[in-house]
Amino acid sequence: MKNYKFILCYDGTRYKGWEHQPGIDNTIQGKMEYHLAQMTGGEIEVLGAGRTDAGVHAKGMVCNARFDTALTPEEITGYMNEHLPEDICVLETRIASDRFHARYNAVGKTYCYTCYVGLGKPVFNRKYVLTLEKRPDVEAMRKAAGYLVGKHDYRSFCGNKHMTKSTVRIVDSIEISERNGYINLTYHGTGFLQHMVRIMTGTLLEVGAGDRDPESIPELIEACDRSLAGFTAPARGLCLISVDYD
Amino acid sequence: MKNYKFILCYDGTRYKGWEHQPGIDNTIQGKMEYHLAQMTGGEIEVLGAGRTDAGVHAKGMVCNARFDTALTPEEITGYMNEHLPEDICVLETRIASDRFHARYNAVGKTYCYTCYVGLGKPVFNRKYVLTLEKRPDVEAMRKAAGYLVGKHDYRSFCGNKHMTKSTVRIVDSIEISERNGYINLTYHGTGFLQHMVRIMTGTLLEVGAGDRDPESIPELIEACDRSLAGFTAPARGLCLISVDYD
Repeated sequence: MKNYKFILCYDGTRYKGWEHQPGIDNTIQGKMEYHLAQMTGGEIEVLGAGRTDAGVHAKGMVCNARFDTALTPEEITGYMNEHLPEDICVLETRIASDRFHARYNAVGKTYCYTCYVGLGKPVFNRKYVLTLEKRPDVEAMRKAAGYLVGKHDYRSFCGNKHMTKSTVRIVDSIEISERNGYINLTYHGTGFLQHMVRIMTGTLLEVGAGDRDPESIPELIEACDRSLAGFTAPARGLCLISVDYD
Repeated sequence: MKNYKFILCYDGTRYKGWEHQPGIDNTIQGKMEYHLAQMTGGEIEVLGAGRTDAGVHAKGMVCNARFDTALTPEEITGYMNEHLPEDICVLETRIASDRFHARYNAVGKTYCYTCYVGLGKPVFNRKYVLTLEKRPDVEAMRKAAGYLVGKHDYRSFCGNKHMTKSTVRIVDSIEISERNGYINLTYHGTGFLQHMVRIMTGTLLEVGAGDRDPESIPELIEACDRSLAGFTAPARGLCLISVDYD
């Protein structure tokens, strides 16, 4: 059997997230597995680079699956795009090395969280942004973001209370840009805990609103206590941009 | 009573078009009238610059309405954006001269029709574009568009078979641009007949697909026969960009 690597984009609005769950058929993984099974005639397991939450979007999710087919990678892409719903798209299919594993081999991920503070309402992008009432203090957010970057125990930013494994991660960069009323928070790191990007975003937005001091961040990291961090920013503003491999 | 001019944008996907109709409450005009009535406590008639079809979008629709209120124009904008659904937005409210009429005073309109021929599927813009199977011959489309421009009887491009009034209009320009897999057809004219932009777009796409010769356009205009023109391109790709006033 060949090992295929896929790059996907999807609008996560109407899905229960990436991971298939018993009795729930509207997950991205579930849709991929269903249509690959239809294509090949056999049961297929699709392994994702990570699990995006319900409502989170992706422009560069990576996954892999092992199967046999007479179709070329281009033909697989064509088949999948014809059969997948219009809010999921295969951007690329290629044959990977037999050992390739989308999750274990991932060495970095980029996420982008988008907020809107422009004129009126973001009518055409409303499902992909968080609308803010007031323009936040972006400079204060950048200062706070500087403290979040590094190699830390990010337990304060972990949505899973029962996490027993290590919560140490490396966040290489958090860039905050502003254009035409949109504020983008772009995170790059080796990996992220459950809800970590959304909790970091909520925390940075509280800094931007003046409710939290940038200088309080080191203490917050130190505390390893989720209840001290900010709110979990809504899923709709979050997008997995890309996954890095060596 | 003061006469207020509004500029609106909306995602037309889930509406039955601009114009209110008896027994149908999901029209843009109906939503505007309802919320202005709630705001002022009286019945209000909203006059639009034109009637967008069901499913057509707008980034710069103009309308006007007469009423009394203690609110400032900025406060009216704020009230409306808070109460209107998230797919309709008031971009601007201002006090207009008492004689201003959004339709009678309009001297020009710009519409944009968007097609997609890029990689995969336009997941995030899927409700605002027509996806084409094959890249059209844009140069042939531009040539055909050149013949469509001018002052003509556009009866061949009129969706209303029972149109008794003049079907003569002036189309100043049709520009076709291509970027990142998107093809935009931008129309500017003094006014457009029912479905006219969509039928011109369908005709140009047939030229682009090689099914129709650019040189056949003058004859098609001459014929004044709707059945000889191209298909009516779907509403989803069309957007009213702006309305001009002196």
